[in-house]
Amino acid sequence: MTQSNLIPGRRLRLGVIGGGPGSFIGSIHRGGAVLDGLFDVVAGAFSSDPDRSLAAAKTLHIERGYADGFSLIDSEAGRDDRVDVIAIMTPNNSHFELAKRAMEQGFHVMCEKPLTNTSAEADELARLAQQHNRLFCVAYAYTGFPMVRQARAMIANGDIGEIRMVQCEYMQGHLAQLGEDELSGAHWHFDPEISGPSLILGEIGTHAYHLASFVSGMEPSHLTADVCSVTPGRDAHDYATLLTRYDNNAHGLIWVTQAAAGAEHGLKFRIFGSKGGLEWHQQQPNELIHRPLDEPCRVLAKGGPGLYPAADRHTRVVIGHPEGYQEAFATLYRDLAEAITARETGQALSPDNAFPPAEDGARGIHFIETCLTSSQNGGSWEALR
Amino acid sequence: MTQSNLIPGRRLRLGVIGGGPGSFIGSIHRGGAVLDGLFDVVAGAFSSDPDRSLAAAKTLHIERGYADGFSLIDSEAGRDDRVDVIAIMTPNNSHFELAKRAMEQGFHVMCEKPLTNTSAEADELARLAQQHNRLFCVAYAYTGFPMVRQARAMIANGDIGEIRMVQCEYMQGHLAQLGEDELSGAHWHFDPEISGPSLILGEIGTHAYHLASFVSGMEPSHLTADVCSVTPGRDAHDYATLLTRYDNNAHGLIWVTQAAAGAEHGLKFRIFGSKGGLEWHQQQPNELIHRPLDEPCRVLAKGGPGLYPAADRHTRVVIGHPEGYQEAFATLYRDLAEAITARETGQALSPDNAFPPAEDGARGIHFIETCLTSSQNGGSWEALR
Amino acid sequence: MTQSNLIPGRRLRLGVIGGGPGSFIGSIHRGGAVLDGLFDVVAGAFSSDPDRSLAAAKTLHIERGYADGFSLIDSEAGRDDRVDVIAIMTPNNSHFELAKRAMEQGFHVMCEKPLTNTSAEADELARLAQQHNRLFCVAYAYTGFPMVRQARAMIANGDIGEIRMVQCEYMQGHLAQLGEDELSGAHWHFDPEISGPSLILGEIGTHAYHLASFVSGMEPSHLTADVCSVTPGRDAHDYATLLTRYDNNAHGLIWVTQAAAGAEHGLKFRIFGSKGGLEWHQQQPNELIHRPLDEPCRVLAKGGPGLYPAADRHTRVVIGHPEGYQEAFATLYRDLAEAITARETGQALSPDNAFPPAEDGARGIHFIETCLTSSQNGGSWEALR
Amino acid sequence: MTQSNLIPGRRLRLGVIGGGPGSFIGSIHRGGAVLDGLFDVVAGAFSSDPDRSLAAAKTLHIERGYADGFSLIDSEAGRDDRVDVIAIMTPNNSHFELAKRAMEQGFHVMCEKPLTNTSAEADELARLAQQHNRLFCVAYAYTGFPMVRQARAMIANGDIGEIRMVQCEYMQGHLAQLGEDELSGAHWHFDPEISGPSLILGEIGTHAYHLASFVSGMEPSHLTADVCSVTPGRDAHDYATLLTRYDNNAHGLIWVTQAAAGAEHGLKFRIFGSKGGLEWHQQQPNELIHRPLDEPCRVLAKGGPGLYPAADRHTRVVIGHPEGYQEAFATLYRDLAEAITARETGQALSPDNAFPPAEDGARGIHFIETCLTSSQNGGSWEALR
Repeated sequence: MTQSNLIPGRRLRLGVIGGGPGSFIGSIHRGGAVLDGLFDVVAGAFSSDPDRSLAAAKTLHIERGYADGFSLIDSEAGRDDRVDVIAIMTPNNSHFELAKRAMEQGFHVMCEKPLTNTSAEADELARLAQQHNRLFCVAYAYTGFPMVRQARAMIANGDIGEIRMVQCEYMQGHLAQLGEDELSGAHWHFDPEISGPSLILGEIGTHAYHLASFVSGMEPSHLTADVCSVTPGRDAHDYATLLTRYDNNAHGLIWVTQAAAGAEHGLKFRIFGSKGGLEWHQQQPNELIHRPLDEPCRVLAKGGPGLYPAADRHTRVVIGHPEGYQEAFATLYRDLAEAITARETGQALSPDNAFPPAEDGARGIHFIETCLTSSQNGGSWEALR
Repeated sequence: MTQSNLIPGRRLRLGVIGGGPGSFIGSIHRGGAVLDGLFDVVAGAFSSDPDRSLAAAKTLHIERGYADGFSLIDSEAGRDDRVDVIAIMTPNNSHFELAKRAMEQGFHVMCEKPLTNTSAEADELARLAQQHNRLFCVAYAYTGFPMVRQARAMIANGDIGEIRMVQCEYMQGHLAQLGEDELSGAHWHFDPEISGPSLILGEIGTHAYHLASFVSGMEPSHLTADVCSVTPGRDAHDYATLLTRYDNNAHGLIWVTQAAAGAEHGLKFRIFGSKGGLEWHQQQPNELIHRPLDEPCRVLAKGGPGLYPAADRHTRVVIGHPEGYQEAFATLYRDLAEAITARETGQALSPDNAFPPAEDGARGIHFIETCLTSSQNGGSWEALR
Repeated sequence: MTQSNLIPGRRLRLGVIGGGPGSFIGSIHRGGAVLDGLFDVVAGAFSSDPDRSLAAAKTLHIERGYADGFSLIDSEAGRDDRVDVIAIMTPNNSHFELAKRAMEQGFHVMCEKPLTNTSAEADELARLAQQHNRLFCVAYAYTGFPMVRQARAMIANGDIGEIRMVQCEYMQGHLAQLGEDELSGAHWHFDPEISGPSLILGEIGTHAYHLASFVSGMEPSHLTADVCSVTPGRDAHDYATLLTRYDNNAHGLIWVTQAAAGAEHGLKFRIFGSKGGLEWHQQQPNELIHRPLDEPCRVLAKGGPGLYPAADRHTRVVIGHPEGYQEAFATLYRDLAEAITARETGQALSPDNAFPPAEDGARGIHFIETCLTSSQNGGSWEALR
Repeated sequence: MTQSNLIPGRRLRLGVIGGGPGSFIGSIHRGGAVLDGLFDVVAGAFSSDPDRSLAAAKTLHIERGYADGFSLIDSEAGRDDRVDVIAIMTPNNSHFELAKRAMEQGFHVMCEKPLTNTSAEADELARLAQQHNRLFCVAYAYTGFPMVRQARAMIANGDIGEIRMVQCEYMQGHLAQLGEDELSGAHWHFDPEISGPSLILGEIGTHAYHLASFVSGMEPSHLTADVCSVTPGRDAHDYATLLTRYDNNAHGLIWVTQAAAGAEHGLKFRIFGSKGGLEWHQQQPNELIHRPLDEPCRVLAKGGPGLYPAADRHTRVVIGHPEGYQEAFATLYRDLAEAITARETGQALSPDNAFPPAEDGARGIHFIETCLTSSQNGGSWEALR
């Protein structure tokens, strides 16, 4: 293992907005930030209700609790020991204003996906990151797995030749039935004003789309989509299939659903080129299946022989010891910390530093909008962006 | 194991047309016919060249060699100990005339897929089978696996509820590169006059389509298709993706290719209903993954507890001993033998007897034609049949 | 695929003793014999009751039914069209006399395992095979899988270097509870007079032991054994563990049981040498896992790239199409047919011809006796043979 | 997920001894401690060289660096904000004195395994923990996986009935060849004065032994062992096989090696009882295979349906998102934090709190010594402890 080697001269400071006690994504962000000893979580706002927000900070033993997200940003901006990064994990429709303010106040940003609910807002965030020269990481967590980085490096190095097919699927089962919080409207996920124009595309479609692009190094030029609900009585989309085409004549396929009864997670990609294929399953993330043309299939193992530095630098435990989703998340924080350190110290940043920037988040929103256009037009082939 | 119990009063007699020495499909048909002791292969024609045909019969120790397929049919028709079934495994464009003649002469037929090269011919064969009251089995071999029969029985019994999604994929790799026999035109597979209008759809698209329908018990009402070649320099289709819709609002997806470098076989289906999902991989055919909603995943095993008679009756070896493609093929012959026996003896035929009839073969050809229409129309949604 | 190429000039004739209708092993032997078109099953004796024996032959459509096994042997010996091979699949304690008579009458023999119930008898059969110059195959069926042949060839070629560890396990579950036929004494398996001195060692211990030796090319020099029943109320052995040592300082391990509740089959070996390891599971028999030292793991596929002729010659279906236990059995018959043909035609026999001879059967009985000696001596290390 | 609910009223403070920059086990301990926000790592000593020790603390951004482990213990003892727990991850022969001093100074302890190099020392640590009323956790990390906790709970609840067989294996490959640091004596692992009397038993034998006992809830009464080196030129043990017996007539088997060329990790257990079996692989840790007698096999999933609270309380991420070795380690720290909190607050501790205490560490050392006695006596069956 040749690990990431830009060690910051101090622990960086993180402020988190959203993800209070009991929130799965909250503990994942905080755990990811501290896992490698690169960040301390020193500030937090966990509710729009000031009392609940402050109580949550106390429960989590976070030093500087704030009444709400904007207070956190504005107050921290005035401190000498201000946080370095603001992490945003609030409902989707609030990302834009919070991220905008954070950048305007000079903070780097870690933001949950989907980045925003409209492409105009998403593009604006990407523009603001450039304007304010801020580092902006979109939490596409699956890009942090070492074997995803390995796949990306292999394709970039031509190990499977010219890409011919790009497939990605993501099948979850928790929406196989109408739930009580869905029927009552209690959960914001089912409110398009908050969660955006398409539940399935925002929740996991953007993940599948981004992962396929991140690994293959290619963006589709056109797509046709079937976006719908397969569950009687549901308004929100819970199923989408997409066919894609690329400029180099490669063809692709994306299948996402949260209504597959009994399914667990099922995120998986398969990419075939002129010289071989790659296959990765998120539920067995420490393996990457490589099928070289006319040779036996290989199962590359995290921490094992034959990997690129892009994979090894984010491998924390020796071969055979599984690493998971939490570590993948931590890798986004590590890449971000490394980029901040490079900037502060003037050191060169590794070409393998690969956290997904605001532009990747914006592309996800354009993707959603293009899918919806195609689907509403009865499956027309639409140019992407 | 409660096995199939209609034992014929004598060995049935089989005549084979095509599939001489060195042909993989020839040995599979003959092996499938004799495996259970239900058939003797007593007649054969193996070439349009009379000398080669007779020599092949001799090499294979087949008693009654014929100069060609039509001679076999006509000569056998005149014998007292005439064959019961004619099995046809010649190039695709010859199926129609041979099968037609065989039925006209009073034989039952086992025929390779794709059934014919046009839907008009295919429909005619289905009509002739009715008219002549002949049993006609299309060699959709994957329907013979015990765990495919189990999946079909489970869905028919409502074990996974109302069907919501039907997915099938079939990825092979042997056409990942242009081959010499392709460039030289030496192999009939690449000649559309012989192999039909779409290589990929005829070769494996029909398998995937039929398997999805056989197991789910539903036919799609509409589809949109992207049928193409992803390999530079190839005219023949080597890649197809299809989105489907069903009358009950289920949605579906088929992905087939023979140009996935390094892929082996990859035939797999996943079907999800309101109460759970089923998943089956041809490369591990003795397992069926059942994901009941809100319960742990189950791995049903061939010969193991909890199976329906539809699976057990075609299980030849006790639990844990793998059965494969050859046995699946033998099951088609066994189902056919059982149907012949039922007819000859007047016994009732098991409702689990399930060889694919000529109508299934014909639906496969309509499927091909509908896909091509959609693809040529830029991905229009087309009604199927 | 470069298949076996010694084609006999005629179908060979097989006579079977034992394995009547309803017997799993009977249909496996007959199916294995006819699968490749190399044998016709023309004679059979299926019971010690003459009426039942003749009725069974009729049910199975076998031309020459006999009242019992010895009648079959003696009568066939007098025919011009006498059978070439006698296959014996009767209860264990009858193997010796039947096989002896068959060889004395000039027949080649296929015999089930365990070969006999005492090593004296087993050695005598091996001696008789030499004396009468008869081919004698012991039905160690698992040696017929293509990927087992591949493993054997790889080790013989030094692909994993000097062998350091040899492990084999075989865990079945059908004796997890006392059964009715066990309590009533109805099943001969539980009668040591018939089935031999140790149920578990005779049934599957010999398989595991033989497979480890067949693949590794080495026999252990010493072993210590723990042979027992783990199921309350059972006299027969249902569990055995063995530690082994080899002359070259390799160490080994065998674990066999039929009392593992819920287990299916579980036959598996893992062999490690100085340059890598091999792993094979009978339930996924078409893969062989190769772990070369300091390189990524490879999954060799039946019919795929990178195999030795020893594997390819027994591959009947192209890559990705599973083959199973029935085909492995057929390979023993094919190897035997090939050896008979070589002898009759004077052609050279392939060095890859590898059916297990009587000597292998005899070694299995010595193995059983050595295990029992060790276990009765409280786990003493005993020299093998 | 019903998570662990004893939330400490403050972050606990951890002091670490050993595991400096570049040490895999060091980052695992520190990451495990901070992952859930339960601990801050505030003190550290990382070398017996004072300068290096202090420099390491600075590199790791740890506030209170000390010149060596004893200084850390003694100095922290005098502080108002003294650490709550001392974590020891130094070479094996130093555990005893450090842990002893830590308890004498009133600290709780987290200590690496093997606990000590002699059973006398190990027993003394267990006694001291009682005497000083200190909580003492031995870092048997594999006990922290949710599905290991699930297996343990299932057996305790009788879900697989009376235990009949307990198997555990652990096969690594990194010692398949003599390494340079081994030949030069540079690595302390190969020095028995430091690492203890048997490399293989200390390194991973204790893990396998402990895991089998932790899950099955039973200790073997007797064992026979073959402990050796299979690698030419190596003095240290790199291979061990053990047969075990239990008071209830269950039998067992342990196989451990670090010389299996090409192997990755391979820690796995299989336990069979009268009503079913359980199987778990560390490399796919989020699944537990449950084979109920006479029912289909089930694959229980972390975060999925049908789990006991013992598993759910340590599940950090929703179904389908893999958790790994780091999280298992964090669970030991969480269980320890929970026990400290229970003690400080007087709240009842969950019966599912299950960190391995000093007694478990001591049993591991007795196990090593018993194995060596048996092996030196030519494989005698020896009573354990």
